[in-house]
Amino acid sequence: MSGKAGIIARTDREEAISLADRIVEILLKEGYDVLLEPALAEIMHKPELSAQLDRMRVDVIITIGGDGTILRTCLQIPKPEPPILAVDMGVRGFLTEVPPERAIEAVKKYLRGEYTIEQCSKIASYIGDKRLPDALNEVFVTSRHLAKILHVKVSMNDETVMSCRADGVIIASQVGSTGYALSAGGPIIDPGLEAFVLTPVCPITSIRPIVFPSSSTVKIEMIRPRTAMVVIDGQYQKMINEDEPSLTIRKSEHKSSFIRFGGSFYQRLKARLLFSREES
Amino acid sequence: MSGKAGIIARTDREEAISLADRIVEILLKEGYDVLLEPALAEIMHKPELSAQLDRMRVDVIITIGGDGTILRTCLQIPKPEPPILAVDMGVRGFLTEVPPERAIEAVKKYLRGEYTIEQCSKIASYIGDKRLPDALNEVFVTSRHLAKILHVKVSMNDETVMSCRADGVIIASQVGSTGYALSAGGPIIDPGLEAFVLTPVCPITSIRPIVFPSSSTVKIEMIRPRTAMVVIDGQYQKMINEDEPSLTIRKSEHKSSFIRFGGSFYQRLKARLLFSREES
Amino acid sequence: MSGKAGIIARTDREEAISLADRIVEILLKEGYDVLLEPALAEIMHKPELSAQLDRMRVDVIITIGGDGTILRTCLQIPKPEPPILAVDMGVRGFLTEVPPERAIEAVKKYLRGEYTIEQCSKIASYIGDKRLPDALNEVFVTSRHLAKILHVKVSMNDETVMSCRADGVIIASQVGSTGYALSAGGPIIDPGLEAFVLTPVCPITSIRPIVFPSSSTVKIEMIRPRTAMVVIDGQYQKMINEDEPSLTIRKSEHKSSFIRFGGSFYQRLKARLLFSREES
Amino acid sequence: MSGKAGIIARTDREEAISLADRIVEILLKEGYDVLLEPALAEIMHKPELSAQLDRMRVDVIITIGGDGTILRTCLQIPKPEPPILAVDMGVRGFLTEVPPERAIEAVKKYLRGEYTIEQCSKIASYIGDKRLPDALNEVFVTSRHLAKILHVKVSMNDETVMSCRADGVIIASQVGSTGYALSAGGPIIDPGLEAFVLTPVCPITSIRPIVFPSSSTVKIEMIRPRTAMVVIDGQYQKMINEDEPSLTIRKSEHKSSFIRFGGSFYQRLKARLLFSREES
Repeated sequence: MSGKAGIIARTDREEAISLADRIVEILLKEGYDVLLEPALAEIMHKPELSAQLDRMRVDVIITIGGDGTILRTCLQIPKPEPPILAVDMGVRGFLTEVPPERAIEAVKKYLRGEYTIEQCSKIASYIGDKRLPDALNEVFVTSRHLAKILHVKVSMNDETVMSCRADGVIIASQVGSTGYALSAGGPIIDPGLEAFVLTPVCPITSIRPIVFPSSSTVKIEMIRPRTAMVVIDGQYQKMINEDEPSLTIRKSEHKSSFIRFGGSFYQRLKARLLFSREES
Repeated sequence: MSGKAGIIARTDREEAISLADRIVEILLKEGYDVLLEPALAEIMHKPELSAQLDRMRVDVIITIGGDGTILRTCLQIPKPEPPILAVDMGVRGFLTEVPPERAIEAVKKYLRGEYTIEQCSKIASYIGDKRLPDALNEVFVTSRHLAKILHVKVSMNDETVMSCRADGVIIASQVGSTGYALSAGGPIIDPGLEAFVLTPVCPITSIRPIVFPSSSTVKIEMIRPRTAMVVIDGQYQKMINEDEPSLTIRKSEHKSSFIRFGGSFYQRLKARLLFSREES
Repeated sequence: MSGKAGIIARTDREEAISLADRIVEILLKEGYDVLLEPALAEIMHKPELSAQLDRMRVDVIITIGGDGTILRTCLQIPKPEPPILAVDMGVRGFLTEVPPERAIEAVKKYLRGEYTIEQCSKIASYIGDKRLPDALNEVFVTSRHLAKILHVKVSMNDETVMSCRADGVIIASQVGSTGYALSAGGPIIDPGLEAFVLTPVCPITSIRPIVFPSSSTVKIEMIRPRTAMVVIDGQYQKMINEDEPSLTIRKSEHKSSFIRFGGSFYQRLKARLLFSREES
Repeated sequence: MSGKAGIIARTDREEAISLADRIVEILLKEGYDVLLEPALAEIMHKPELSAQLDRMRVDVIITIGGDGTILRTCLQIPKPEPPILAVDMGVRGFLTEVPPERAIEAVKKYLRGEYTIEQCSKIASYIGDKRLPDALNEVFVTSRHLAKILHVKVSMNDETVMSCRADGVIIASQVGSTGYALSAGGPIIDPGLEAFVLTPVCPITSIRPIVFPSSSTVKIEMIRPRTAMVVIDGQYQKMINEDEPSLTIRKSEHKSSFIRFGGSFYQRLKARLLFSREES
């Protein structure tokens, strides 16, 4: 049962490229059509497989990198998103499950159908009528100027819940609760809970994260200044201007989906958070 | 349409007692039967109205005090719990809505049926087969010895999610998220979300609160020592012994209910917590 | 005993300008020479008093604004800095002591010599040999790109003390400990202690603030990326480039000095921060 | 150059006892007099070496255990305290430097004089005129009742600095800043800084740790209730009663001293805090 596969790999690490090479070989042998991002195709001397990420219409994506690689993929890939098999070759990998040494085995398991699919909620955000790309991890609203405070008013379903002066505020999804929101002091949200979390970043007075139903409509109004920057998944930026100084946030109708081989959310956490760590 | 009312008031504050006096008068005039806790009945020279809290079978309870008064009432009152009209005369009142100066007005509104009922989830906990009283705010498991670390393993639905050495761990409900759990670093949980929060207290390594579906079954196992103390709503204590060194926690089938006059959860928070100091 | 006074006021608030007007009048009557920043001089129709802040050689500065106004003044005023009489007309004023309604009285007290001087340590920082302007509150090193992680290694007196991935790191002085560093999770430092505090901002793993002697030499090396932005007192920005990817920090030989009328550090804190809400 | 050595070891771990055995042998061969705590002497079948800790007048102490073992030793040993060679055989060891596999080597180095002495400030505390045992890590004032809030007022050098409702407050030394105070949210204090840190434990409103000169006199007054419990180094407890409802804290004239072999404070931290961790 063949199909079409896309491969997204960090091009700044040789192991990532050589792993990509072995995976491409396996997939081609299996009768798959394979697509590579242009930079990767060039490094691998396979220009005939080159395709832009935002035009990769495939049945499965294999990412070889960290959370950044996955987030970028989910932002750009045509919707609906194909499932992602995420090989961990990054600094922090809450989204990835497969370590590099098990990557080949994981690809073979995938080909044999021995996997499950984990679906993850995404966050839609709007400036006026304009919809921004969905976030898998988080939507971050911050001052346009470094180290300048942003004063915002946050409402949920038309009720004001918070007024805060801070570096910014994060709305994170369940999986995103283990990312930037965690660094800013937010809790971990069980993936089985239909909830998002609002976390202020460096508020000037102590204001706590709020966990709320993902079915809520959240509105963030810029009080002072009347402009701000929205950053989605640490990858995509959009300015909020004075003529429309607010951002509306809802659960997206789209989801990202990941190919899993048995490792649960808490097992992934355990390996990274409640236990050991990398540093140097 | 008369009925039976119970009044629970702090007896260490004269305003509480004189307010109780005025409320009793109104209720009696309205044809209500009124019951008072023995200590209050004595102070108010109405021994004929005296009744133990755990035998007060009434249609409505009026509390005049802080969160502690309410928590004690919800612990002891016969089930199913009657709705509570909570007048705030305490230090911290996240559960109360009515300030003393509006207490009479609130009682009259109640008598005219001009109110809504807010229902709050409660937490059931078990040591082996033995069920402890339900918690409205939180279940706290801690070392039996001051300043001694407790090592526990926490699982949800039979999956280990956390192993931690700490002063203890708190499982809090939505309303409880604004109480002790908040002091220990937990987030605020929107009352519309069917979720509880697990918060370690002074963990020796940084371990984050986890927000999870209230439908989960949580098990806390004592690793070292094999004994601990359970404290429910800061009021009820029970020892966990070596022969059964674990606590199981689930959502209770019971709820507490509060008589509300329009003030929402976030309005109650706002007055106390969420807004930057200089605002209101 | 007359002299030269400079006045620095927010020009976006009418009260600040009208207060400046009254103060100028008093000072002129007292025989003082008065200087105003050009924008203020224009608004007050006194072009003859106009002078750039960085050329204001005066005996005393009166600021009418918030902490931002003071920080800007301390950054730009010619050294050694004249003492500052700080009238509070801002959002957060940890540095200011005098509320607007007591401003005239404070100026008169100053003229009668009824005041004390509080001296505050400043922080010197260097990129290679190039010295940046001294910080009164803090030196903040951060990624040049919004929401991008900066990996730095921090050493004190040539010993590595911390390796962290974060939004950035703050080195704050004693007075600065109540500013941005506090928002990022740092402690308050007693002004009588010769200490600075190193606080990571949103570190991806839990890393704690370190309080260290202000006599230490701190070096912050950019590991990845090799570039960063330095922000001093939220006002002055300087890029750190790959050719010199580190910042060295020491206690400055300069101090800022404030005219005080009896209010202590903890009294200023108290009004803003330290006391439980319900007290004063 | 012989002398007198005391050995304090955990008796619940066989490795600790067998290591004690080997160390005793080396010391006796070297001509040292050796003393053992009674329980250890009994297990090691050396009743002739038995001595109570609080009567061990020796030239050096060797501890084989965790921080708890060291803290207990420093509390009970006759003053002035002999230097401690601390072998790490515990859960958390910020005070220990020598891992078990290097213990024999360390003892030999000590015998050859190849070491340095690290001196650590201790904290004296008084209830009225009654002095309690000095703390090496921290003095903790807490409610006498589990999960009950204690309202205290804290002053430094007769100035009120904080009023707080919390589980309790900790005053920690520099080395103690890496212990319980860290778990409660305090910063790390560089051992070169003459400072202590005041950290509230689970305050009901957000109150920050204060780092202050160790030369200060701190007074903690119990406001409500008027009683409390003092816990010193997690080991020694003393009740504070209504007749004298306050605790006075100063730097002690005594110090604890540790035998070090090159590992610095930050290296010890690094191995435990900013990097890996043990859990299961």
